[in-house]
Amino acid sequence: MQRIGFIGLGIMGNAMAKNLVKGGFEVTVWNRSPGKCEELKQLGARQAGSPRELMEECSIAFAMLADPAAAEEVCFGKGGVLEGISRGKGYVDASTVDAATSCRIAAAVAGAGGRFLEAPVSGSRKPAEEATLIFLAAGDRSLFDEAVPCFEKMGKKTLYLGEVGNGARMKLTVNMIMGGMMAVFCEGLALGTKAGLDASDILDVIGAGAMANPMFALKGKLISQGNFDAAFPLKHMQKDMRLAVLLGDQLTLPLFLAATANESYKKAKSLGFSDEDFSSVYKAVTS
Amino acid sequence: MQRIGFIGLGIMGNAMAKNLVKGGFEVTVWNRSPGKCEELKQLGARQAGSPRELMEECSIAFAMLADPAAAEEVCFGKGGVLEGISRGKGYVDASTVDAATSCRIAAAVAGAGGRFLEAPVSGSRKPAEEATLIFLAAGDRSLFDEAVPCFEKMGKKTLYLGEVGNGARMKLTVNMIMGGMMAVFCEGLALGTKAGLDASDILDVIGAGAMANPMFALKGKLISQGNFDAAFPLKHMQKDMRLAVLLGDQLTLPLFLAATANESYKKAKSLGFSDEDFSSVYKAVTS
Amino acid sequence: MQRIGFIGLGIMGNAMAKNLVKGGFEVTVWNRSPGKCEELKQLGARQAGSPRELMEECSIAFAMLADPAAAEEVCFGKGGVLEGISRGKGYVDASTVDAATSCRIAAAVAGAGGRFLEAPVSGSRKPAEEATLIFLAAGDRSLFDEAVPCFEKMGKKTLYLGEVGNGARMKLTVNMIMGGMMAVFCEGLALGTKAGLDASDILDVIGAGAMANPMFALKGKLISQGNFDAAFPLKHMQKDMRLAVLLGDQLTLPLFLAATANESYKKAKSLGFSDEDFSSVYKAVTS
Amino acid sequence: MQRIGFIGLGIMGNAMAKNLVKGGFEVTVWNRSPGKCEELKQLGARQAGSPRELMEECSIAFAMLADPAAAEEVCFGKGGVLEGISRGKGYVDASTVDAATSCRIAAAVAGAGGRFLEAPVSGSRKPAEEATLIFLAAGDRSLFDEAVPCFEKMGKKTLYLGEVGNGARMKLTVNMIMGGMMAVFCEGLALGTKAGLDASDILDVIGAGAMANPMFALKGKLISQGNFDAAFPLKHMQKDMRLAVLLGDQLTLPLFLAATANESYKKAKSLGFSDEDFSSVYKAVTS
Repeated sequence: MQRIGFIGLGIMGNAMAKNLVKGGFEVTVWNRSPGKCEELKQLGARQAGSPRELMEECSIAFAMLADPAAAEEVCFGKGGVLEGISRGKGYVDASTVDAATSCRIAAAVAGAGGRFLEAPVSGSRKPAEEATLIFLAAGDRSLFDEAVPCFEKMGKKTLYLGEVGNGARMKLTVNMIMGGMMAVFCEGLALGTKAGLDASDILDVIGAGAMANPMFALKGKLISQGNFDAAFPLKHMQKDMRLAVLLGDQLTLPLFLAATANESYKKAKSLGFSDEDFSSVYKAVTS
Repeated sequence: MQRIGFIGLGIMGNAMAKNLVKGGFEVTVWNRSPGKCEELKQLGARQAGSPRELMEECSIAFAMLADPAAAEEVCFGKGGVLEGISRGKGYVDASTVDAATSCRIAAAVAGAGGRFLEAPVSGSRKPAEEATLIFLAAGDRSLFDEAVPCFEKMGKKTLYLGEVGNGARMKLTVNMIMGGMMAVFCEGLALGTKAGLDASDILDVIGAGAMANPMFALKGKLISQGNFDAAFPLKHMQKDMRLAVLLGDQLTLPLFLAATANESYKKAKSLGFSDEDFSSVYKAVTS
Repeated sequence: MQRIGFIGLGIMGNAMAKNLVKGGFEVTVWNRSPGKCEELKQLGARQAGSPRELMEECSIAFAMLADPAAAEEVCFGKGGVLEGISRGKGYVDASTVDAATSCRIAAAVAGAGGRFLEAPVSGSRKPAEEATLIFLAAGDRSLFDEAVPCFEKMGKKTLYLGEVGNGARMKLTVNMIMGGMMAVFCEGLALGTKAGLDASDILDVIGAGAMANPMFALKGKLISQGNFDAAFPLKHMQKDMRLAVLLGDQLTLPLFLAATANESYKKAKSLGFSDEDFSSVYKAVTS
Repeated sequence: MQRIGFIGLGIMGNAMAKNLVKGGFEVTVWNRSPGKCEELKQLGARQAGSPRELMEECSIAFAMLADPAAAEEVCFGKGGVLEGISRGKGYVDASTVDAATSCRIAAAVAGAGGRFLEAPVSGSRKPAEEATLIFLAAGDRSLFDEAVPCFEKMGKKTLYLGEVGNGARMKLTVNMIMGGMMAVFCEGLALGTKAGLDASDILDVIGAGAMANPMFALKGKLISQGNFDAAFPLKHMQKDMRLAVLLGDQLTLPLFLAATANESYKKAKSLGFSDEDFSSVYKAVTS
């Protein structure tokens, strides 16, 4: 069996790598803070000394990193993926980055003879743990076909979206909608409860109508309990909102709602909620 | 069997009154444009000459009117409901109005010896036709209990929310969230498709994740087909957004998203989409 | 010499009435809290027991009240202006109210045989004290001509704008621009200083360019000193922003900036700055 | 006399270079489209074949370029300024760029032994022509002192703001305020005129009060005449708004007004007004 690499063991990456191991794959992991590899090692994974080493011993490597800067560092940095790439190897970056970053990485990987796929995910900690992520893959079609068995151990659905950049664009599109929905939901919850209604009644009415969705049901309950533990950290949502607004800028598409939601998430950051769940935008509304 | 009145036979009221008739109630109807009563008469309803006449011959009367002005006119105007009210009669206003209007009507009905219930609905044409509306009732508890059999013929769920005004506040809260969701959804669809993605792929990704909801599925498809036939006319959504923002004003609660969405709906109105579905805010985004 | 009435001795009204007295007019004053009349009485003014009494003994009466509710109460309330109006008398309301309120008052005054002028002012405490207000008058032309000598004692410029309502509309238009300017100015000051620039350098650059204006010069200095003493209370600015946005609503004109500024002023209110100067929106930006 | 270089002969650069020539300096010019050098040559300027050549024959060179990309290209590109820099030479970039770009250029120039000053300007075509620009200089203090005689021929005021980046930050701060002012001014003009007021009355009232400023007086008149000829092209204002909002992002400072104004300028771009004056945001408001 081919050996699969996994780079980046944060909340998301850790769960995804575990699902690969549990799914029967031989896995090699790497993380900038080496301590985070321990749990995977106990499950049977090997630990590489650098992204280069990992890439050298694996046919396909996945990465799940915090932001474009980390994605670039892991690829282009000293001891990075690019140094370990050779003909036929596949690199799948599941980080959420902008299309331009994806394209730079794709070009470099191709230039080194490798194949590249961007595959940002829809879903946060819980779907990562339960292997119900949605992969938004774009890039090398043959790599996509080979990677499908891996995707299937980590998620419930995988779309192939064409050329590199489309995965990033889809992720931004979807997260922008999610961030806007959450922000307006929080305004509504704040308005209703301040007007004297019970949060549970509000959730009940929404849950019975055309807007009913798992996110409102789950987050609405947690918000009304004052529970803002991070499933999807607010700072990452704000980053995605910013990138979505900038994509609109490049396309000359005004996005009044998304731009305003971006400021609401910034406000929440300025109040100290960066590392809490993105639903803590509720506290920015009511502060 | 007691006779039930129904005032206001627009898109919503017509469907609701039909469900009462089909449900076995003796129904008397009234509409400002009398021609709209024909269909109900053919189904067996009686037509009254005025809200007063209707109120006189019914024990409970429902109203479903376009806006606060119409609700006030039907109640307080010449030949209005108030002139037909007497001890024990029940008046149930299912129109979406502000809490202040509800309270004025409630006080007048009570002053005439009658009982009042506000019962704005969540749901538009289709739920009205399919009797799956959600009633947000508030006011006289005894009238609520008596009206439940009627509500059950017209909707799938009825909440009793306490004092008059809470129904209006719940409706505004829920519609504000709905309007904001739709506006940000349209921005996302516009962004994704302008970036080269297929609308159907976007809907597919959303439909597979935590945001999945019937409204996005239905409206997303219609929007991508260019179908903006009114289920919930945009001008009514804009009115609700305005009232929600004003409620926030009274409560000193800033609502940056809702205020911005309100302007987006105004923009759509200024472009001539008042009478199309509220999803035509999409055309304001992409105009 | 005809006797002039002045109703409402708040920050503005007190200064304006004093300028009438100093200008040589015989003045009768009234204020809801009678104690505020003392200063004027010491300067030679008479104190009336009610707006009705005041109107009865004056040929022209001015009013300067806090909001539409106060303006309506003083006119329509028990012992109000309307009871003291008779043929030929003139009532000049300098309060900032919406056009609809002005029109109701105008119709009532005309119905009682009197003449009405709305004359909201541009300018706050200092211009009121220094008699450099700008009057935005609209309504009865003959009353306007008779009132000009009074206006000249209280202000430096008076415009006649035609039919009643135009004064209110001009005031809202101008205050909306002022409120938006201030809000964006505060965002800029906050951005620049947080980026490491000196506030005084920023004010220096602005003061040397095409944007140079007395308001930025004065308020910019006070803001950088942390001085938010009320010249124009923030709650009044927020009220004007709300009314301007609603006027846009009636005219189907989307106002994204004004709507957002309105929320910023609401935010400042929610933080407790209602009675400070409207420049304390700065503290909402930086909180 | 030392020879002064000038790179970039757009609307602004052309006027500035002319003022240097008229001021008695020996000037060498370069522009990407060589034809634009003709006018300067006829006034006595020399034309260089590349930024490198220009830098080699001048002791101090100024640049005035359209955006960060152009500024980087002129500095780092083949035949660029960097190739012509040697010990003691001074490079003054008056383009409006972000602080990061300025810092990259500053580091490269210093690395080549040269001295660098960023000096973005406040003021557009007319102040450029009339030599009334304001220079926001930051960087090498000795170069600043040497360049003052040049600045004095091109502008009326020069500030020294300290370390490189502060000029960019000041420019963004000031332009953000300017862009926000203009956008809210346009909303106010649109509201007032749609409400039936004369634009000239609105301008008259504003001009008599604390908001009075040359920009509103000039642009207000042009807007009401439908004259949107570019003094400061809208696309450049939108770029500055975007950069200001991003600076707020880096500083975790929410800027609801500026973010909304940015979308308004994007809207104007999407309607085809990129190359018109930034006051054509008025047409986006009223479209």
